Amino acid sequence: MSATVITNIATLVTNDPSLRDPDPLGLVRDAAVVIEGDRVVWTGAASKAPATDNRVDAGGRAVLPGFVDSHSHLVFAGDRTEEFNARMSGRPYSAGGIRTTVAATRAASEAELEATLTRHLAEALRQGTTTFETKSGYGLTVEDEERALRLAARHTDEVTYLGAHVVAPEYADDPAGYVDLVTGAMLDACAPHARWIDVFCEKGAFDGDQARAILTAGRAKGLHPRIHANQLSYGPGVRLAVELDAASADHCTHLTDADVDALANSATVATLLPGAEFSTRAAWPDARRLLDAGVTVALSTDCNPGSSYTSSVPFCVALAVRDMGMTPDEAVWAATAGGAAALRRTDVGRLVPGAYADLVLLDAPSHVHLAYRPGVPLVTGVWRRGVREV
Amino acid sequence: MSATVITNIATLVTNDPSLRDPDPLGLVRDAAVVIEGDRVVWTGAASKAPATDNRVDAGGRAVLPGFVDSHSHLVFAGDRTEEFNARMSGRPYSAGGIRTTVAATRAASEAELEATLTRHLAEALRQGTTTFETKSGYGLTVEDEERALRLAARHTDEVTYLGAHVVAPEYADDPAGYVDLVTGAMLDACAPHARWIDVFCEKGAFDGDQARAILTAGRAKGLHPRIHANQLSYGPGVRLAVELDAASADHCTHLTDADVDALANSATVATLLPGAEFSTRAAWPDARRLLDAGVTVALSTDCNPGSSYTSSVPFCVALAVRDMGMTPDEAVWAATAGGAAALRRTDVGRLVPGAYADLVLLDAPSHVHLAYRPGVPLVTGVWRRGVREV
Repeated sequence: MSATVITNIATLVTNDPSLRDPDPLGLVRDAAVVIEGDRVVWTGAASKAPATDNRVDAGGRAVLPGFVDSHSHLVFAGDRTEEFNARMSGRPYSAGGIRTTVAATRAASEAELEATLTRHLAEALRQGTTTFETKSGYGLTVEDEERALRLAARHTDEVTYLGAHVVAPEYADDPAGYVDLVTGAMLDACAPHARWIDVFCEKGAFDGDQARAILTAGRAKGLHPRIHANQLSYGPGVRLAVELDAASADHCTHLTDADVDALANSATVATLLPGAEFSTRAAWPDARRLLDAGVTVALSTDCNPGSSYTSSVPFCVALAVRDMGMTPDEAVWAATAGGAAALRRTDVGRLVPGAYADLVLLDAPSHVHLAYRPGVPLVTGVWRRGVREV
Repeated sequence: MSATVITNIATLVTNDPSLRDPDPLGLVRDAAVVIEGDRVVWTGAASKAPATDNRVDAGGRAVLPGFVDSHSHLVFAGDRTEEFNARMSGRPYSAGGIRTTVAATRAASEAELEATLTRHLAEALRQGTTTFETKSGYGLTVEDEERALRLAARHTDEVTYLGAHVVAPEYADDPAGYVDLVTGAMLDACAPHARWIDVFCEKGAFDGDQARAILTAGRAKGLHPRIHANQLSYGPGVRLAVELDAASADHCTHLTDADVDALANSATVATLLPGAEFSTRAAWPDARRLLDAGVTVALSTDCNPGSSYTSSVPFCVALAVRDMGMTPDEAVWAATAGGAAALRRTDVGRLVPGAYADLVLLDAPSHVHLAYRPGVPLVTGVWRRGVREV
């Protein structure tokens, strides 16, 4: 198999855990990376790089691991531009929220859904996302949830069953009946296509006991839990995530000290989704508090048409630095290694021998520019599984 | 001369003043634009478009006027990444501020400065900016200011002499002597290359009397005034701008009611620069208050390596909607027609017969997506002076 060296890298972010003390990003200056097949086989000083057949000159720019977007909702149809426009313009609008998207998604053909999914994935890839998780949750029937997951599984291994996004409209008067469906026939149909099970644990969606029942049922079918927790209000989601060893508690906007302590003493990652706070003008999660307590933090887009219609991890990095108290280094770690931790992966989110050759080349000399140059599309090269895609 | 029609436009933003009531953006749905040479010659319903030799299918997407970025500082050298990183990370750093960039700019060769300028202009063009203003202000000697303006004038008609950015280090003990230089030999050398004269009217830079002397001297040499006003504190800048009929008062972050009244009863535009507040974690200017008072508002990037290193007008639109109380329509108007007003231009910032054929094609069905999809590089086509550049 022929090898390729990417050299003349001014700043290489490895996230190599063996280099983590004192530098969490495991930075190498004047560096090179060698890839062979779909894997990284060597990283280090450019002057010491082994000879290879192919050579790419990074031109004194920065290379980092491809972004790991561990939270998105990309199997959907329909448009909520007018709902967004009215919200931001202070005009009344009878928004149906998630249910608007549920109706459109159910009505869409499989081909339409897949075209929308692939269009958003290509858009994310151009912005440096090489690993993405995506969810069901806009179907809310056995057939529509199964269809969403089957579609998603064609494009990623990180597929999450979120039948428990909201109570389906048909069960508005019988939420217990909907929980029975989500943990019964719907779970049976969906489990073969998914790796994860998720629940929106929030007032108006599912309470702690319902969430526990749903995640426990999923676990019995081989799905691993993750939770939409503590987004809009204080609640039991985060502590339930820790109790069930969920890979991630996502949002974490409203946390008590007990919630923070629980996360700090667990293997559950806090995944922060600043696109949602940006697009709903909500208060920011306090990343600084979590980091100071020793919690592992991930950053993801929450890309969805209602509350966070961004596919841009670089944008989330800039927001996390500006508004959530993260340093540029912490934000870049959270968007790469942090996202990988939230998916319990060590083969992505880092550039070390044996990891997937998922790399981003920035049109900038350092990763700090992702925050220093907000909004500028700096991603100028993307390799995924060793193949140059951008 | 052969004509080209761009058709199948779902949403066309014309900013046509004759359509402004009730719709400030003069929107046309299912539209077409015809361009001939460097000009727009027709806009209207796609079904009524005249026959042309060439046809471009916009694919049901949105077309708007190219962005008019009326405030940038692109003639510079040097890097302030570490200053930014330290500020955002809460680490001490003995930053030299503007003076750091002055030293690097003076030390750079003309070729280096022009390469940096053209790189940033290409980056801005890819993001939809078709008209840009740029300034001197990192030279602060006769030769270095003249060089900056001469370079800038090769690339744009909108060149601003900002010898009065800060007092040059050589004149730290003699600010009056520096004002004499700026209004004397430096002005004589610079005026032939510039259209505008600007001054940073702020505590620590130039006070109201100094600013008036500088702008008045520039006006006597045929330069039209604009002012960096009321950015960091309350002060005389905005009222001076109105007094001197400046085209624009830029920043406008700290305004009294008298300042707002003065702007509302003038032809002076308030140019808001949210990239600066974003990158310095400063309080946002209150666009809503200005708009409600009837002030004309422009949005620009303030692209510079110290306080706002973004070249992205779409990013500024998203911030203006999220954090400054602008509706998506108002923000898009401000970034196009507003920027044109801040440069006293009617041949850009609008798509009407006779205007320059400067157009942006978005990968989205509406201009609202610039705010709805923050951080996503939606600009997928750019025409400048009738030529497709992106």
